[in-house]
Order: sequence, then structure tokens, then C-alpha cells
Amino acid sequence: QGTRDHPPAQAALRDRLLAAVVACFKRHGAAAIDTPVLELREMLTGKYGEEAKLIYELQDQGGELLALRYDLTVPFARYLAMNKITNMKRYHVAKVYRRDNPATTRGRYREFYQCDFDIAGQFDPMIPDAECLKIVHEVLSDLQLGDFLIKVNDRRILNGVFAVCGVPESKFITTCSTVDKLDKMPWEEVRSEMVGEKGLSPEAADRIGEYVQLHGGLDLIERLLQDPKLSQNKLAKEGLGDMKLLFEYLTLFGITGKVRSEAEEMCLDLKNQRRHQKAVRVPSLGEEGRPRSQGNSNTQLSSVSQCRFSGGLIKCVQVVLSVHSGNLSLPRACLSLQASGEKVRATETQVLVATPQKHLLAARLKLISELWDAGIKAEMFYKKDPKLLKQLQYCEDTGIPLAAIVGEQELTDGVVKLRDVATREEVRM
Amino acid sequence: QGTRDHPPAQAALRDRLLAAVVACFKRHGAAAIDTPVLELREMLTGKYGEEAKLIYELQDQGGELLALRYDLTVPFARYLAMNKITNMKRYHVAKVYRRDNPATTRGRYREFYQCDFDIAGQFDPMIPDAECLKIVHEVLSDLQLGDFLIKVNDRRILNGVFAVCGVPESKFITTCSTVDKLDKMPWEEVRSEMVGEKGLSPEAADRIGEYVQLHGGLDLIERLLQDPKLSQNKLAKEGLGDMKLLFEYLTLFGITGKVRSEAEEMCLDLKNQRRHQKAVRVPSLGEEGRPRSQGNSNTQLSSVSQCRFSGGLIKCVQVVLSVHSGNLSLPRACLSLQASGEKVRATETQVLVATPQKHLLAARLKLISELWDAGIKAEMFYKKDPKLLKQLQYCEDTGIPLAAIVGEQELTDGVVKLRDVATREEVRM
Repeated sequence: QGTRDHPPAQAALRDRLLAAVVACFKRHGAAAIDTPVLELREMLTGKYGEEAKLIYELQDQGGELLALRYDLTVPFARYLAMNKITNMKRYHVAKVYRRDNPATTRGRYREFYQCDFDIAGQFDPMIPDAECLKIVHEVLSDLQLGDFLIKVNDRRILNGVFAVCGVPESKFITTCSTVDKLDKMPWEEVRSEMVGEKGLSPEAADRIGEYVQLHGGLDLIERLLQDPKLSQNKLAKEGLGDMKLLFEYLTLFGITGKVRSEAEEMCLDLKNQRRHQKAVRVPSLGEEGRPRSQGNSNTQLSSVSQCRFSGGLIKCVQVVLSVHSGNLSLPRACLSLQASGEKVRATETQVLVATPQKHLLAARLKLISELWDAGIKAEMFYKKDPKLLKQLQYCEDTGIPLAAIVGEQELTDGVVKLRDVATREEVRM
Repeated sequence: QGTRDHPPAQAALRDRLLAAVVACFKRHGAAAIDTPVLELREMLTGKYGEEAKLIYELQDQGGELLALRYDLTVPFARYLAMNKITNMKRYHVAKVYRRDNPATTRGRYREFYQCDFDIAGQFDPMIPDAECLKIVHEVLSDLQLGDFLIKVNDRRILNGVFAVCGVPESKFITTCSTVDKLDKMPWEEVRSEMVGEKGLSPEAADRIGEYVQLHGGLDLIERLLQDPKLSQNKLAKEGLGDMKLLFEYLTLFGITGKVRSEAEEMCLDLKNQRRHQKAVRVPSLGEEGRPRSQGNSNTQLSSVSQCRFSGGLIKCVQVVLSVHSGNLSLPRACLSLQASGEKVRATETQVLVATPQKHLLAARLKLISELWDAGIKAEMFYKKDPKLLKQLQYCEDTGIPLAAIVGEQELTDGVVKLRDVATREEVRM
């Protein structure tokens, strides 16, 4: 339940998507590490809050108590701690496991890929954050999934907004989780939840509403820095200062503003909270948590966040891309490829070695062996005497572009007939 | 226990090894499939005989009873059955799980990679078998792990040998498992086990000894086909006939005899049994099982076998490469790379973008962004004002070959100084 096989065309497509992601991670100088799919159960305990019930546990068959990894962040933190590493840029692309209610029609699976890129170590403010957003931008562009909008925010700004709107600090977290629903429901409903369920005053809710529906670029940041109330709040001011720095760096990277299309590509969106708060248990995370980005269709394609490992010793900025399908969407990508008229081939075979008459198996074996040894992707039929029509039909069915035909005449002349399957053009060579 | 993290250099090396294997599989026209790491427990039950106790079971947390896959063959058989596919050439490179006694010093792990290549379908005798051996030959050559010897046999020949040596049919299997030990102990010990434990007559054991210590190529096959006793045995004659056909195909592939070095590369070795008998529960497998290959140091690097899925409906010829370490040996490969003087880099970074003075972060950000967008693998320090010496030292430590330096002078002149880290040669461009 909640898992699936990948048939060849889908596996080929997924490999292509993951290869694009890995190429981007490598372009940014990350090293690969690999960790076991099994972790000690105690390693995962207490790291995921309420989500802990979604961890797959292994049966006690004697020996250690084990569980399947829930993400790649906790194993990375363990790896750093075990090896006493304080400084590392690594990527890890692997499957993770969650006993979630699967919703396979919406592309939500219990076994799915995560693509993690982490910069752990010492750094000056917002430089690695900017690189992580550049990576998200590159991946989303490379995958050609259409227009996208990357929203960033700083938790300190949202907390500052709450403070200047008169929300008591004890209600910051619960108010925050209501604001988070603005992605899925209209402001009116969010407002009534704030007042009705969360007990905010209508005035406070209205004031919050004015802020959290804002989004924009450097101009908005400058305006908020001039905001008479917000500019007086220490937290908000710090957050806005870092956001300003971030947008300056993003501008140097050329990824702010309307770069590629009519869609805004990068904006400050005050309603966003940071993600992965629960993924790593760090007390200081609330204040430290920084930008988050997401896809345009309310699908969280990726997240960038800052976290601290080992009780605050190691700071870490990360990108997490979740590849369910529908998330970093395989079906969507399939559709977009189909729309572009490209057929997804299951194999990469370049040529079929074929014979038109009987008793020519030896000639096929000799030729295909030479092709393989030359690094050419080649196939042949496993029959002694296959029919030429069937061989050519197989090329058409599977998208093999060329057929290398050796018949009696070709053998006599010491040549091969190379046929372009699509045009039926033939050359002897 | 029995698992491990792969640090960057090892992960990079493993990726390179697996990439070579996958490239070979693709060269032979195989499609990739992927299956979940979880299988229904009942799917694995009864497939592995005594080894079943080594299966990792998941805790019953409600819902289906699950287990971790033990190999990639049973999931493939399930995939074919579920999708009613009778004809497929696929590869699958993925981790498998066995609660074995780990012997990590000997490179035996509980989580390790298997690289499977299977040809399932209808075919004329020995053609796919020959291709599978060609694949093993290509992979072992590509990985440059040194000389190797591929041993093949046909179970029917060994059974024929037992018959003509006077072993009762009821003792074929137990005698076979004693013969199998010839890889690890001298003939004298094997002989005394046959006589002492297995109850064969000393004469029968001696006669078996004459056969099972033979190895050679086509010449040996021809000789055995003339052998007055063996040639009268129907099973042996069929097996030898197929072996002759196989060696003819292998000769056309150019991989028989002393091709590459003094070491014999391909031989018939009568003592070999086929492998993976237990991996797929098929009654007809005993007679159907065919060639097996193995490494020269008694390490089973790979196996080629023939099996039937779905109670004999689908015939399948497969290559299985087990990548523990020490098996398809990471440490051995590391040593051989180190011996060759090649340093295994953890990253593929081509250039470090560096600055020699303060206040040049913006210049670095702009330049590195251009490099990334041009597909160049580039890194920079996450400090506003790093020291040039530290930046150059980092290049030397991590093997980055080039440094792109932007200083005040370069900015004024609109150029970049490109430095070859090894030779310290610099060009302005």
C-alpha cells in the first residue's frame, strides 16, 4: 500500500529527473554520501514530534531495534556527529519511508525519493541561503515544469508581525499554524479561525491580515523597513535586514524579479513559515529558521531551511526536494513531455543488429560484439532465424533509430547495410 | 550492525563502479525497472529455503505484513506476473537486505547492492546465455580489477558424471554440495567427505575426482563428447552439446581462450554447480540450471543462471553482481586506484571562484552565477572576506584544478585571472 513499481518508461523518466537534480548539486560542489536505509530506532525517537507514529519499525528479530529512515536529514546529522565533522557540503538522493495515509491519486506515496543538499558549517549571513535558492531555481528551470514562484520568508518577521499586531507571545505558534492555511483557504476563513478558535481579537486579526497578504521583492522589504510599527520591533528588523541581504545576493545571481516570464519568480511572502522545524530537534530553531520556497500550485516542491545540529553546534542550510509523483511530479512531467511530442523510450539502444536471411546468426554475433566493444548500445533477437519484418517492427515499437543489416550479399561484399528506421533510407558501409 | 555509511570518496567510487555496470547493461539494451524496497511478507515466504530466517521483517503496525527484499529476482518475478509480461530485458541496481552474520572485514554486509540483468522470454538455446557471459566479461574488464577467470558449467554434465561414476540418483544433491567445496579445500579432503560422510564408495569418489578436476575450453568439451562413458549418458550429452554451442558463440564474441593475458578467461569447470537455485522456487530448475561464473580468488563476483518464473512459464537468463565490498570489492578497487596513483576526489568541482582582497563578495557572486549557468562546476567560500591563501589551499586539499581570481585590478580591467592550481601558471582572460 502506498508503494509502486516503476515500469521502464517511468523509471527512465525518473532517472532523468534525478540526474538533472544530481547534476545541479554537483555543479555546486557537493559531495555525495550514502547512509543505510536502516537506522537505530532510538536515533529517530523524539526527532519528529507527532509524525513519529509514521515511522516504519522493524520487527525485533534479535539484536538491535531498527527503523526505516524517515528523511535524510537525521541520518546526515548522525553522520556528522559520528565522524566529528563540522563542515561539509553534501548531497544525498535516496528513498525515505513514511507510514502516511497514502493518496496515490494525488501523488503521495509511502516510499518516495528525497533529494537533499546541505551546507553545514561556518559562514557569513545569507550567502549559503542565497546559493540554496539558486539551486532551487536551477532545478525548477532545468526540469521545465512550467512557471514557478519561489516564496521566501523569515520566521522572525512573522513573529514581529504578531508582536506589533498585539498577539501575546504564548499564541505565536498556534497563530502561525492558522496563517499557514492561507495557502489553501481564503483570508476570511483564516480570520474567523483566528478569532473563533484561536481567541485573537478581531482587531489583531485584521492587522495581521494586512501584513500576511503582502508579497513583493526588494521594494516590499524596503517599505516594511520603513513601516512605523514593524521597524520598531527588534526581531522583525533583524529578519528584514537579512532578507534585504538575501535579495541583494539573489539579484547578483540574476534570479529576482520577472526574469523568465510574466510570473514573479522570487518574492517575500509574509505568511510563509519555515519548514523542517520538526525534522531536526533543535531548541534554537524557531528563531534561526529562515527561508522557505514552494511551488506555484500550492505543492511544496522543495524547501530551503536553516537548522542546527548537535544542539546548535553545527549550522546547516538545506534544500529538500521531495519526489513523490505529483510533488516533484512524475505524472506532470510525463504529461509535459507528452505534450512536447517527445516519446519516453524505455531503453537507449542505438542500433538493432538484424539479418534478412536464415543461417546468419554467427554474422550477427560477430557484428554486435564489435559494436558493444566500441561502446555502442546494440540489441539483437535471441532467435537463430528471426524474420526481417519482425526485427524492423521491433525498432519502430521501441524507438531504436537504426538497424544494422547483414545479409548474404553484405557478407560477400564485406559491408553492413545501415538503415534509418524512420526514413527507411539505407547506406552500405 | 553489518551496515555502514559511505563517506564521499567511497560514495564517489561506488557511483563510478555502479555507473560502469549500468552503462554495460544499457549497452546491451536493457530497460530499468524499480520496485519498492518493501515486499509483502507472503511474497518472500518459501522462496529462499533455509535462508528465509535471514529476511528482515517489519513490525506489524497495522495493515499489511511487510519485509525488506532479499534479492531483486523475486521482485522481478512478481513484477512480471502482476503485469502479465512474458518478455523483457531489464536491469535493476538496488540495495538488498540480509540478516546474515556480517563479516565486514571480509566485506560481507547486511545491506549491499545487487546489480541484476535479466533476459526473460522465448529464445533459441544459449544465445542469451552467451550475452550474459559477454556482459560479465565486459563488466570485469571495465572495472579493471585485474585478471579474472570465468568458469561455466551445466548441471546436467555434473549429474551425468555422477551417474557414470556409479552414484545413486538419491545422492546427487548431497554429493553436489560436497563437490562445491573444491573451491575452498583440496581434493583429498573433498574425497574423504564423500566417502566418510556421504557414503560413496572409494571407487566412485576416485572416478568423480578424475572428472571434476578438469577444466578447459572447446577442446575439453570435444574430448568429453568422445568420452566412452560420458557420451553414453543422455543428460551429460545434452549438457555438453549446449556447452559446445555456448563456446562457439563465446568464440564469436572473442572472449574465449587467452585473450587479454596469461590467465585463462573462460573455461568449463566441471565442479561448478549453478547458483540461485534457492532464490527462485522452480521445480524444473535442477535440470534447467546452466552456466555460472565466478571470480578467480574464490570470491563469487557474479553469477549467470537460468531460471523459470511462474512455474516454468517464463524462462529467464540472469546476471547477478553482488556489490558488498570485498565482493565486487570497493576496498580492492580503492587499493587498485591508489596503486595507480589516482586520487579519488569527493567532488567534481572544476573551479573555485576566489578573491584576493576584501569587499569583493559581489564580484564573486556574479562570476560564480555565470559559471553555474554555463554548466561549470564551481564553488566559492561562504565568507565575505576569505584569505586568498586559504582559498588556494582548499583547492589543493580537495583537488580543484582551477581558481578563477577576481581582484580589484581584474575588476578594473574587466578580466578574470585563471590559475592552474598544480603549476601555479596564471592567465588573464
